[in-house]
Amino acid sequence: MILPKFVTLVEVGPRDGLQNEPETISTTDKLKFIEILSESGLKEIEVTSFVRPDQIPQLSDAALLANQLPSSHSVLYSALVPNLKGLERARSSGIKKIAVFTAASETFNQKNIHASIQESLDRFKELIPEAQKIGMEIRGYISTGFVCPFEGDVPKEKVLEVAEKLLEMGIGQISIGDTIGAASPKDVEETIGFLLAKISAGKIALHFHDTYGTALANVYAALQLGITTFDSSAGGLGGCPFAPGAAGNIGTEDLIYFFHRMGIKTGVDLNKIFEASSFISNLLKRPLSSRQWQRLRSQQKGKNSGNGK
Amino acid sequence: MILPKFVTLVEVGPRDGLQNEPETISTTDKLKFIEILSESGLKEIEVTSFVRPDQIPQLSDAALLANQLPSSHSVLYSALVPNLKGLERARSSGIKKIAVFTAASETFNQKNIHASIQESLDRFKELIPEAQKIGMEIRGYISTGFVCPFEGDVPKEKVLEVAEKLLEMGIGQISIGDTIGAASPKDVEETIGFLLAKISAGKIALHFHDTYGTALANVYAALQLGITTFDSSAGGLGGCPFAPGAAGNIGTEDLIYFFHRMGIKTGVDLNKIFEASSFISNLLKRPLSSRQWQRLRSQQKGKNSGNGK
Repeated sequence: MILPKFVTLVEVGPRDGLQNEPETISTTDKLKFIEILSESGLKEIEVTSFVRPDQIPQLSDAALLANQLPSSHSVLYSALVPNLKGLERARSSGIKKIAVFTAASETFNQKNIHASIQESLDRFKELIPEAQKIGMEIRGYISTGFVCPFEGDVPKEKVLEVAEKLLEMGIGQISIGDTIGAASPKDVEETIGFLLAKISAGKIALHFHDTYGTALANVYAALQLGITTFDSSAGGLGGCPFAPGAAGNIGTEDLIYFFHRMGIKTGVDLNKIFEASSFISNLLKRPLSSRQWQRLRSQQKGKNSGNGK
Repeated sequence: MILPKFVTLVEVGPRDGLQNEPETISTTDKLKFIEILSESGLKEIEVTSFVRPDQIPQLSDAALLANQLPSSHSVLYSALVPNLKGLERARSSGIKKIAVFTAASETFNQKNIHASIQESLDRFKELIPEAQKIGMEIRGYISTGFVCPFEGDVPKEKVLEVAEKLLEMGIGQISIGDTIGAASPKDVEETIGFLLAKISAGKIALHFHDTYGTALANVYAALQLGITTFDSSAGGLGGCPFAPGAAGNIGTEDLIYFFHRMGIKTGVDLNKIFEASSFISNLLKRPLSSRQWQRLRSQQKGKNSGNGK
């Protein structure tokens, strides 16, 4: 098959990776994490979420954090924004790209953001023109793009419907999430293949979790369909903190190894990502779930104990 | 793409999974492990290795174990055999299928079995007719089929050469191993695609390790080439015991989820495999590396603590 020469990684570790962590990470440490990530060659890092501070305590320092982001000319820092109030907070903190979020499953959207899919789309109708006026780029997340933990398999028609509505509103790129990591390459082929009849590949990013170990297989299926933008999280951060060892987002380290091994450029330095995720792992006092992270860590331990081989 | 309706899993947990474990598992416990595996619907389980007992202490009970295997009519129990002496031990223990092993990389073969590839093939020339005489089935392993830890990328021409020599000797199926788990789908496509010009898909099994998280992606690439036999290890046993968390063989649980999700039958009961690998995990006093194993285990812990969700 013909593989692309270059893919784009969107780092979501500071936001999706950290949001469920019960161990509070200080703003200073988050900034350090983002700073190391920013030195890796990544072009986009999702750094926080401007939801109501009590909803995600770990990200309640969103404005404080955004105000102190490193001044990088090569990295675009983005943040989740749920409504006009969040947009105003993001804008005044200097954020240049926002992401709005909804789902393809009603039950999940209700449980996640206490709104129907239509209600969340209605909010975006207010929000997006305001964001466009101030020159912000906009990404749209569609959670449960394949499987919903409450409803099971999500019809591809529903995913297409939500995706088209988001794109009609002027959103530049939609990121379709396998929220519980249950999708297989067949799901990817069926749902994304269906979307591609109406939507160009460049407008679609995929956001996989590695709960069942299928994430890279899904990426491979997506590559075959022409998708070239993938979300990931340094170290595979984002696992449920109450399930030690359970995998979170697909690890940025795993994606980098995978692509580079196939001769596909990412422009991202694996060692820098590992440095960033190791920094967080030390703060969380637990190993991370990325396979490549674990391999590099055990290699490092071997060296430190003089037992390197 | 057109997916097969059915695939065959070859369970290698009792042999490849346990052989590097420093914690000695008693013969009784190994038999219990194999007994539970035998109730899962698996058709073939590689149970031990008749190498010199001092070479792999964990498997030094090969004959004792083989003599007490459950009397199953549906499961074929196989064992590694390095030479005529091993064949005699296997035969007198009632083993009906053997596997011989060599590599596609000279350096690896030298380090692994202290013989050149040609020397190991010469041994098989003695061994195979003897095994055939007593009606044994024979499998041939080719280690480092993609990447060698010492030599790097392994030329596909070398893999084909060794594979053809094994098949010419009358071996029924060759299992090509990604010994260090470094292969990508592109490697699979290139090397296995190259072999398939000369060898029919039914004669090739693939044996992946999940060191870099690429194993299921590699399986998916292999499925696309028409391969339908895959080796795996319950719980993903087989990781280096000195690298906690480092992945071993691809987990049987991961393969089962992957195939079943795509509507491909394996005939194997996931819960039974999980029961077997959990039994071993308790003995080893460590979690296993299969993603699906970790997910099921954390689900189970949630239930046991009355915190199931």
